[in-house]
Amino acid sequence: MRGADGDARLGELRTPHGIVQTPAFMPVGTQGAVKAVRQQELEEAGAEILLANTYHLLLRPGDELIARRGGLHRFIGWSRPILTDSGGFQVYSLAERRVVTEEGATFQSHLDGARHLLTPERATDVQARLGSDIAMVLDECLALPATRDEAATAMARSVRWAERCRRRLLALRNGGVPDVRPSNAGQAQFGIVQGGLFQDLRDESIDRTVAIEFEGYAIGGLSVGEPAEQMYAVAGAAARRLPADRPRYLMGVGTPEDLVECVARGIDMFDCVLPTRNARNGQLFTSEGRINIKNARYAEDDGPLDQQCGCYTCRHHSRAYLRHLFLAGEMTSGVLNTLHNLSFYLDSMRRIRDAIAFRTFTTFRQEFLRSAASSGAP
Amino acid sequence: MRGADGDARLGELRTPHGIVQTPAFMPVGTQGAVKAVRQQELEEAGAEILLANTYHLLLRPGDELIARRGGLHRFIGWSRPILTDSGGFQVYSLAERRVVTEEGATFQSHLDGARHLLTPERATDVQARLGSDIAMVLDECLALPATRDEAATAMARSVRWAERCRRRLLALRNGGVPDVRPSNAGQAQFGIVQGGLFQDLRDESIDRTVAIEFEGYAIGGLSVGEPAEQMYAVAGAAARRLPADRPRYLMGVGTPEDLVECVARGIDMFDCVLPTRNARNGQLFTSEGRINIKNARYAEDDGPLDQQCGCYTCRHHSRAYLRHLFLAGEMTSGVLNTLHNLSFYLDSMRRIRDAIAFRTFTTFRQEFLRSAASSGAP
Repeated sequence: MRGADGDARLGELRTPHGIVQTPAFMPVGTQGAVKAVRQQELEEAGAEILLANTYHLLLRPGDELIARRGGLHRFIGWSRPILTDSGGFQVYSLAERRVVTEEGATFQSHLDGARHLLTPERATDVQARLGSDIAMVLDECLALPATRDEAATAMARSVRWAERCRRRLLALRNGGVPDVRPSNAGQAQFGIVQGGLFQDLRDESIDRTVAIEFEGYAIGGLSVGEPAEQMYAVAGAAARRLPADRPRYLMGVGTPEDLVECVARGIDMFDCVLPTRNARNGQLFTSEGRINIKNARYAEDDGPLDQQCGCYTCRHHSRAYLRHLFLAGEMTSGVLNTLHNLSFYLDSMRRIRDAIAFRTFTTFRQEFLRSAASSGAP
Repeated sequence: MRGADGDARLGELRTPHGIVQTPAFMPVGTQGAVKAVRQQELEEAGAEILLANTYHLLLRPGDELIARRGGLHRFIGWSRPILTDSGGFQVYSLAERRVVTEEGATFQSHLDGARHLLTPERATDVQARLGSDIAMVLDECLALPATRDEAATAMARSVRWAERCRRRLLALRNGGVPDVRPSNAGQAQFGIVQGGLFQDLRDESIDRTVAIEFEGYAIGGLSVGEPAEQMYAVAGAAARRLPADRPRYLMGVGTPEDLVECVARGIDMFDCVLPTRNARNGQLFTSEGRINIKNARYAEDDGPLDQQCGCYTCRHHSRAYLRHLFLAGEMTSGVLNTLHNLSFYLDSMRRIRDAIAFRTFTTFRQEFLRSAASSGAP
C-alpha cells in the first residue's frame, strides 16, 4: 500500500510484466484482444493490465498452442501484465450445457459442442500455460435466485476447489507437473470469495480462502442483478475482512459510479465489459453523464463527446461525425467509441488515484457521482 | 509532371488541401470513413488523398448537413485532399431501382426507398457542398454486355452530362447558383472517359471530353469483368490520347499488379476497395504474394505477415495471432488486416514513384509482378 484516504487505498501491484497502479481497471480482452482496438491504443489510453478469458482461449486457439508461442503475452503482443480468469464463470453461463460435480465442471464447447472437463487442476494448468501474471482459482458460480443452502454448498465447494488450485500451482512452481511447463514462472494466484448475499457465508468464505494463502483475493458472485447498494455493502464488508496487505479485486464490476463507490469501500481492482460493449452500442460515458450517440440531438453537434476528455476521439472528431458513423454501421464507429469509453474509464481511475494520494477522495467522489449521474450530456 | 520513365509518369497534384504525389492510390472512405481504421492511421500509412462516395453521403447524413459542418474535410476530421465520385456508378449499381433519362438518373435510396433525382447539375452541387478537392462529373455507366450502339449512346450522353457538369461548376465558381454555397472554392473537376471496350468510341469520348477542358481526366467503365490484358490495353490507349499535362485517373482499379501495369501505361491515380475489403475477409497482400490468413498453415507461424513490411501489424503481430483473431471474429482482425493491406498498397505506390524517379521502373515492374504473382507466401 502506498496510501489511503478513508477506506480507499492507493497501491502498486508488482508482476513479472511490471507494476500496476491501483485502484486499477482492467479492459477485457476475452479472446486475447480488446474488441475493436489495438494493443498500442490500449497502452496509450493508459491500460496497465488486461484481462483475458481462459475458457475462450482454451477452446480457441488452445492453451498448448499459446504455450508453444511463448505464452499469452508474446502471442498477443502485449508486454504489460495480464490477468486470466479461471473459466468458471463462462462455464456457468453455458447453463444447460454444463454439469458440475465435485471433480469439476463438464461442459460443451459453444464452438463445436465438444465435451470438456474443467477441473481446478486443469484451470490452473491452462493458466500456467497461458502464462498470465495473475491466475484465478476455479470457483463454482451460484445460480440465482439461490437459497442459503445452495449458496453454502457452492461456497464450500469453491473453497475445496481453491485448495486444489493452490496445491496445483505450488506443484507447478516446483516442477511437479511433468506435462505442464508454465510460461510465466512468477505467476501469482488469487482466491475468490463467494457466498452470495449471505453475510455469514461471505465471512466464512473469506476466512477459509485467506487461510489457503493466495497472493490476492477476488470477490465473485456480485453484479449479477442485485441492487447496487446491496452489492456495495457486500463488497465493502468483504474488503474490511480481507487482509490489508493483499490486493482486492471485485470481479465483473461495473459502471463508473460502481468503481468510485467500491474504491471508497476498499476495492483495488476491477474488470468489466461495460465500456467496450456499450461503446459498440453507441452508449458513451462522459464527465457530464451518458450519451446515446444515435440521438437526433447530436446530428449537428460539432463539439467533442466530452469537453474534459483528451482521448483521440475527443481530440479529432465531433458528435455529429460519431453519430453518422454509428448510424452508417461503420466499423470505425466501434473503434472510436471504444477508444473513448476506455479512456474515460482509465482516466477516471487515474483521477481516483490522484484523489486518494491528495486525500481529496471524499470531495472527488461526491463530485464524480453528481456529474456521472446526470441523465445526459448537453 | 516531375519526371517519367517510359510511359510511367511522376507528378504532383496540387489541391487546396495540399499536394498529392502521383502515381497515387486513394483509399476508399465510402461514407466518410475508411472501414475499420482511423484518419490518423491513414496518414501514418501514407495516404495523401481519400475517396468518398457522393451517393452514400448525399443520402446520409446529407450534403446540406455536411456543408453546415464546414464541408467534408471538417466533418470527417481529415485535412488532406479528398476526391468525391459523382454517384453515377452507385446509382448504376442499383439496377432495377433506377431509371435513366436525358435529364438524369431517378433512383430509390437503398436506405429507405425514397425517390431521388440525380442530374449532372445536382451531382455537381452536392459535391460543391461536400467541398471535396476533386469532383467527378456524372456519367452514364454501361450495363454489360453492351452492343456498340448501346456503348455509343451511353458515351454520347456522358459527354452531354459532362458539359452540363462543367457549366454548373463554372456557374458555382462565379456565385451563379444562389442556393448552393461551395465548401471549397478551389475544387477541381475531372471529366470521365467512357466508350466500353470500343477503341473508336473511347477515342471520341476522350476528344469530346477533353474539349470541355477539365482539370483532370478519369477513365471509367473498366475493371468490370473484362480480362486484365484488355483493361490494360484500353487504359493505355486512353492515356496516350489524353493531354500530357493533366492527371489521369483509372477508376476502381485494382490489384497491386494492375496498379503497376497501368502506371507503366501512363496512369497517375487509382482507387479500389480491394485492399480494405480483402483485409476484412482475411485476404492479405504481401511482397511474396497473397495470403489467406485463415489457412491452417499459419496456425503456429510466429513470423510477420510480410518480412518486408514496416506497418504496425507487421511490426507487432504474428501470422498465428492474426489467424486467431480472424477465426475468432474479432473486430481487431479487421483493423490490423486493413492497416496492413493499405500499407502494402501505399508502400507499393511509394516504391513505384521511387522507381520512376530513379528510372528503374522497368526492372521494378518485372520484379514486382514476379513476386506479387506467387501463389502464396511461405
